[in-house]
Amino acid sequence: MKGGRLGRYKQKEELKISEQKLRDFTVNVFKAMGCPEADAELAADVLLAADLRGIDSHGVARLSGYVRLWEGGRLNPAPHIRIVHETPTTATVDGDRGLGLVTAPFAMNLAIEKARQYGSGWVSIRNSNHFGIAGYHALRAVEQEMIGYALTNASPLVAPTFSSERLLGTNPICYAFPAGSYPPVVVDMATSAAANGKLEVAERAGKPIPEGWVLDAEGQPTTDATAVKQGGTLLPLGSDRDHGSHKGFGLSAIVDILSGVLSGANYGPWVPPFVAYLQPVADQPGQGIGHFVGAMRVDGFRPVAEFKANMDQWITRFKQAKRVDNEQPVIIPGEPEYEAALDRRKNGIPLVEAVWQDLNALAAKFGITPP
Amino acid sequence: MKGGRLGRYKQKEELKISEQKLRDFTVNVFKAMGCPEADAELAADVLLAADLRGIDSHGVARLSGYVRLWEGGRLNPAPHIRIVHETPTTATVDGDRGLGLVTAPFAMNLAIEKARQYGSGWVSIRNSNHFGIAGYHALRAVEQEMIGYALTNASPLVAPTFSSERLLGTNPICYAFPAGSYPPVVVDMATSAAANGKLEVAERAGKPIPEGWVLDAEGQPTTDATAVKQGGTLLPLGSDRDHGSHKGFGLSAIVDILSGVLSGANYGPWVPPFVAYLQPVADQPGQGIGHFVGAMRVDGFRPVAEFKANMDQWITRFKQAKRVDNEQPVIIPGEPEYEAALDRRKNGIPLVEAVWQDLNALAAKFGITPP
Repeated sequence: MKGGRLGRYKQKEELKISEQKLRDFTVNVFKAMGCPEADAELAADVLLAADLRGIDSHGVARLSGYVRLWEGGRLNPAPHIRIVHETPTTATVDGDRGLGLVTAPFAMNLAIEKARQYGSGWVSIRNSNHFGIAGYHALRAVEQEMIGYALTNASPLVAPTFSSERLLGTNPICYAFPAGSYPPVVVDMATSAAANGKLEVAERAGKPIPEGWVLDAEGQPTTDATAVKQGGTLLPLGSDRDHGSHKGFGLSAIVDILSGVLSGANYGPWVPPFVAYLQPVADQPGQGIGHFVGAMRVDGFRPVAEFKANMDQWITRFKQAKRVDNEQPVIIPGEPEYEAALDRRKNGIPLVEAVWQDLNALAAKFGITPP
Repeated sequence: MKGGRLGRYKQKEELKISEQKLRDFTVNVFKAMGCPEADAELAADVLLAADLRGIDSHGVARLSGYVRLWEGGRLNPAPHIRIVHETPTTATVDGDRGLGLVTAPFAMNLAIEKARQYGSGWVSIRNSNHFGIAGYHALRAVEQEMIGYALTNASPLVAPTFSSERLLGTNPICYAFPAGSYPPVVVDMATSAAANGKLEVAERAGKPIPEGWVLDAEGQPTTDATAVKQGGTLLPLGSDRDHGSHKGFGLSAIVDILSGVLSGANYGPWVPPFVAYLQPVADQPGQGIGHFVGAMRVDGFRPVAEFKANMDQWITRFKQAKRVDNEQPVIIPGEPEYEAALDRRKNGIPLVEAVWQDLNALAAKFGITPP
């Protein structure tokens, strides 16, 4: 449900590039880093899914970030991913410092296989790196007529309620559900009130941000879009105690515990940063960052056709909901991203100037054809 | 993490009653309704857990509500609860219009048994009624060194983002995690910005409520504590689009789909009301209200001792978080409720006058000893 991000980039479509060109280029960058062919294709698929779905902050805009992590020796391009603990329906996977773009699909495939045999499968992943959009991983299960689940912790930027310290990431939660005649319902959301990207947009525009998004370094509310850069924190979903920020904190804690504590990855303030210029803190209790994925067969609960018929009724009813503003219907979670993908597959993927420059610099660095 | 509710009642402790007395009375009421002895004891245990944990809105304060549902012929006191669909780790249970206080523990026992055998277990429940606090059900799994999960849908009071129509309940989400030397971490939260109970407190005090809790009947923001009674709606967690209300809507949708659509219960605007004076709407697509519970063995992922040691470190670190106000530490989810239970087990359970009257009226109705 990230229509807002999509809208933001719509104004800037100076430059569009075809899915295939951008995909080929991305595969080549991952191969140049030393990823095996199949891993490079998989990692590119995850990034392209973000660009197609309009979640531009998590697509090729991050490619140079992965490269810098690799250059910093913090990312293994050819990991030996292995199952370190297992029951019929649960497992922990060690990602061997690989791309989350590769370790998370490995884990989801395992979860799907367990679900096929036993009804459900749940896999925690440690020793990994940023896994792209959670929705990609959850949607793999939907393709198998299953309900998909994907979580990840992330480097600390969010303060729990009553604190001004960065102890949690924007820790996203995603569930994806198959529907019948409609696209899947995909709830894919950061557990912070606002994403960091929104601050950057406001900063570039020289505009203040709404109260309730961030605290300054002293823990006071502010509308300064640069506050987090100056040592402030993002606020949990709910913004303040009166509006339920303890719930946003609780959700983020769930993600951190299932992804980090349960897998043996790092958690809380120890989660290593995505940006290569920040070093991981000392005395880490775990390995890398952590994810958690799961799959449940719909027909483990009721016949798929019945479920899908009721999903369609659910969606139809919510689309027909009484509107506050006649021009603005209720948005079904996942619908804007689905529509963006239809459009971008056909008309190409818009890139902002900064990302375009970034990709060309990567092409020069590796001596490969620019996108 | 409902410390706020606890504080509210602390001012009113005119009357305290021992856990045992209140429990015996509650068992007798359920028996008088026709519940078998074991069911009556179980249902009382769920309600008492709420009263002990300081979640007074979900304890014996609701007892007369269950009685009225029974009187209205909408609650079967002696249900034949049965498994209608099953795989090794998933199942759907039909509650036969029974108390959710009985059907949900039945389902959680099944989930725990599946988890014991296969690592995890997941059970959806249809044809049920209000199940008390989600935390009770999730904590049953924690007693077995498992992670517990419990969701339920509820009668519609919440409007999705961009709508002014009641389409969702306050649909709570609960995860409970075992810890080592600390009490379990229990995130148990409604997915609305504020609970209905908070509006009642403000109304009684003649005070306005913060913006961001409710919309009036025209879909406009208001600070009128009586707005929902006058046809308004509760807002999802996040309050407005700028602060992420689409995320609160998404969370509530997850709960509604897993509890209602997946089980074959009702969902969205069709979920039958808890209050007996409101009749269920016509043409219901499912049966009763729905729940969803689950359990995962911690040692399905890593040794329990390792997990607990890291949980303890997680909790310690968050308790030590830098404070905005020196007097107010970060609250670990579940900690206030744990402390309330210690206190109330020893010193008795405070009852407000209205609840006390209510229980005495029940005693008179059934000819049983008052608490």
